[in-house]
Amino acid sequence: MQEAMSVPNGKKRLVLALAGYGTVGTGLAKVIEENRDWIIERSGSEVVIKSILVRDVKKPRNFPVPAGATLTDDHEALLNDPEVDVLVELMGGIEAPKKLIAAAIRAGKHVVTANKALLAEQGLELFELAAEHGVHLKYEASVCGAIPILDTLKENLAGNRIMRLVGILNGTANYILSEMTSNKLDFATALKQAQELGYAEADPTLDIEGLDAAHKLCLLTRLAFGVNYPFEQLPVVGVSKVEPEDIEFAREFGYRVKLVGQVQEVDGKIEAGVFPTLVHHTYLIARVGGAYNAVRLEGNACGPIFLHGPGAGDLPTASAVLGDILSVARGAYPNNTGFVRQVPPLANIMSPDEASSKYYFRVIVRDVPGVLRDLAGALAEQDISIAQAIQKEKGAAEVPVVFLTHEATARAVKAAVEGMKAKGLVVREPVYYRIL
Amino acid sequence: MQEAMSVPNGKKRLVLALAGYGTVGTGLAKVIEENRDWIIERSGSEVVIKSILVRDVKKPRNFPVPAGATLTDDHEALLNDPEVDVLVELMGGIEAPKKLIAAAIRAGKHVVTANKALLAEQGLELFELAAEHGVHLKYEASVCGAIPILDTLKENLAGNRIMRLVGILNGTANYILSEMTSNKLDFATALKQAQELGYAEADPTLDIEGLDAAHKLCLLTRLAFGVNYPFEQLPVVGVSKVEPEDIEFAREFGYRVKLVGQVQEVDGKIEAGVFPTLVHHTYLIARVGGAYNAVRLEGNACGPIFLHGPGAGDLPTASAVLGDILSVARGAYPNNTGFVRQVPPLANIMSPDEASSKYYFRVIVRDVPGVLRDLAGALAEQDISIAQAIQKEKGAAEVPVVFLTHEATARAVKAAVEGMKAKGLVVREPVYYRIL
Repeated sequence: MQEAMSVPNGKKRLVLALAGYGTVGTGLAKVIEENRDWIIERSGSEVVIKSILVRDVKKPRNFPVPAGATLTDDHEALLNDPEVDVLVELMGGIEAPKKLIAAAIRAGKHVVTANKALLAEQGLELFELAAEHGVHLKYEASVCGAIPILDTLKENLAGNRIMRLVGILNGTANYILSEMTSNKLDFATALKQAQELGYAEADPTLDIEGLDAAHKLCLLTRLAFGVNYPFEQLPVVGVSKVEPEDIEFAREFGYRVKLVGQVQEVDGKIEAGVFPTLVHHTYLIARVGGAYNAVRLEGNACGPIFLHGPGAGDLPTASAVLGDILSVARGAYPNNTGFVRQVPPLANIMSPDEASSKYYFRVIVRDVPGVLRDLAGALAEQDISIAQAIQKEKGAAEVPVVFLTHEATARAVKAAVEGMKAKGLVVREPVYYRIL
Repeated sequence: MQEAMSVPNGKKRLVLALAGYGTVGTGLAKVIEENRDWIIERSGSEVVIKSILVRDVKKPRNFPVPAGATLTDDHEALLNDPEVDVLVELMGGIEAPKKLIAAAIRAGKHVVTANKALLAEQGLELFELAAEHGVHLKYEASVCGAIPILDTLKENLAGNRIMRLVGILNGTANYILSEMTSNKLDFATALKQAQELGYAEADPTLDIEGLDAAHKLCLLTRLAFGVNYPFEQLPVVGVSKVEPEDIEFAREFGYRVKLVGQVQEVDGKIEAGVFPTLVHHTYLIARVGGAYNAVRLEGNACGPIFLHGPGAGDLPTASAVLGDILSVARGAYPNNTGFVRQVPPLANIMSPDEASSKYYFRVIVRDVPGVLRDLAGALAEQDISIAQAIQKEKGAAEVPVVFLTHEATARAVKAAVEGMKAKGLVVREPVYYRIL
């Protein structure tokens, strides 16, 4: 029988300080307890939670504080504890965790976090700091829960040029769209149901307006393309304005409506964004239901790779956090950004207006002779041609005309919409979505 | 700007010796050339092929020998070259590569291989040897090509107990079944087509008889469950006897026929095997088409994770080989087996007879009154009950009766078949498959 693999400093015990003891924190404590022996077999280390930083030490918790651990509200004591090897940051927010993580790195501690908002909006200086101090800053749990997409990009596919990546990056939005599709709910009802089931927060803005997906897309763009696409510049449209009619019409054409985050390199420029998007029902990504997440990417060697799994939840997120912790326990070298350089250069960003896609349109018109011809004319003026069309409910005063276009730029699409409105062809604001 | 991450011995050049320069070897040379700058950005190292071991240095090759590399048939020179950091074994076979890999490990060289047959049948001593010498023995490319399933099990999901894993592990068999399904081909025609397209070897035995899938299942079982299920003991049924009728009947019940490798823990015992299996069409694994591979696993924290991608081919396999090479370049600690122990204990193997599953049956009977009742009786004697049945072509002398059962053990199924035959109910050997 072999000796244990080498563990840093011959240490057989990895001591954690948790910051935050909510859903993910308690999930992590649960998994560490349940899988204790297994973790030792896998990593050679016992993983021990020593202290848990919370705002209110008296608040009742979902799961008992692990034996031997103490709740504390004292940041300094935790950071100055020489026994603590790893800070596991699960508190949420941006300013407070940033301060805490920076202090932990300066104190020579490794950091594992699930905080996509912090890393997307202000992560670059933390990566630089971690590299200076030679510590791990691991964050697999911040994108798509248990799905191992970050390490896959940093490690396994590191020899590939990634050409394109698309993902269903937010389980709440996907759940809402799935319910609107399967059970023909409207947005408000589906959102309420998601909230009742715990899939959506009381304030669901980050999820339904696409901002959470955009945070994740920022992190994925850095790892896949090695460049920084500033979060504030990313075009983002959420699901709060998606109407049931469009889901139905899309289905008639063979598509599902999904909130898709996508990034690709086109002629040396990065085109990225989060949009409600029509996905053909035969694509695996159209099959992602409920609160699941998925990522599909294409590399110049690996071809198309598709990863699917639970995108959130206490245990799936804890699974990813624990994977990161065990890589620290095992003594892997830090590979924080997936690149030698710790601060990626600014992306050569394609103006969102130049982004090209096929489009789905729904316009409401007065049912007068020649209206379809005039609509086609407004599109043709912008060099947009129609691939398929549906016109229904002939005879009503106002009728929907629905069509799919061939490839067009976002600029041409906007101009065509302005043209339709200027010519008085439409009786309300046209609805249009990209097609994947 | 940061300094490069630490690389072992400060080395910025990783020197490879390739053994074998066929499909994967030339694919690897192509990718290393095409992605040269990117590889340096990712890993901080230039990856250089110095020598390529082949049997016949004069044979023409798909891709030119890289600049600076030499073809050789001299094992010793290659192993004794102090410049060589990594042996990349892509020659195939068992005895010859085993000898070469062992010698390379003894010479202190890291090893990257795609050789599933070797590692499944005789790999354990090589893992032990690699651990003794503190070198990498990486083999991501040996299972499911570009899909990062091995590192996912070793690293990201290391904190999980894996409960169950199922996979489409052989692209050739999946291509043949997909063609039989979509284009209603018989087995022989589909195989011929696969051979013409280069998806199947001239001697397709390993692929169509399920042995290649079984090799991969052995490796997955070790990584997911930490135990060794000896290859020779694994129950294996291939696709060569799958008949078009069963694919059609399965479809009527809403199923696809797939060659599935599966392993699960049931009451502390490992139940594993490779079988043609009915998979409900709504499962992602039923959607795996053509030469693709996929793995679905369930862990006690991560929940269900599904990974899908190209399972073979020059560039996808090279992608996985290169991912392993770059982890060596980056200076990660070896994590060869995913466990502290380098030799897994023997699995507590469930007798294949005790394995329980729902089953699909097709039996050909004489169309006489009461035959369905008698068949149901033969099943009931073994406590097997029927869930759904189809009886067609009434009036012909001999008719197929097709049914799906509730859960039954393999032993009960075999006994029921013997019962049907003993009672003279069937006019040919019944066909039966598991249902996933």
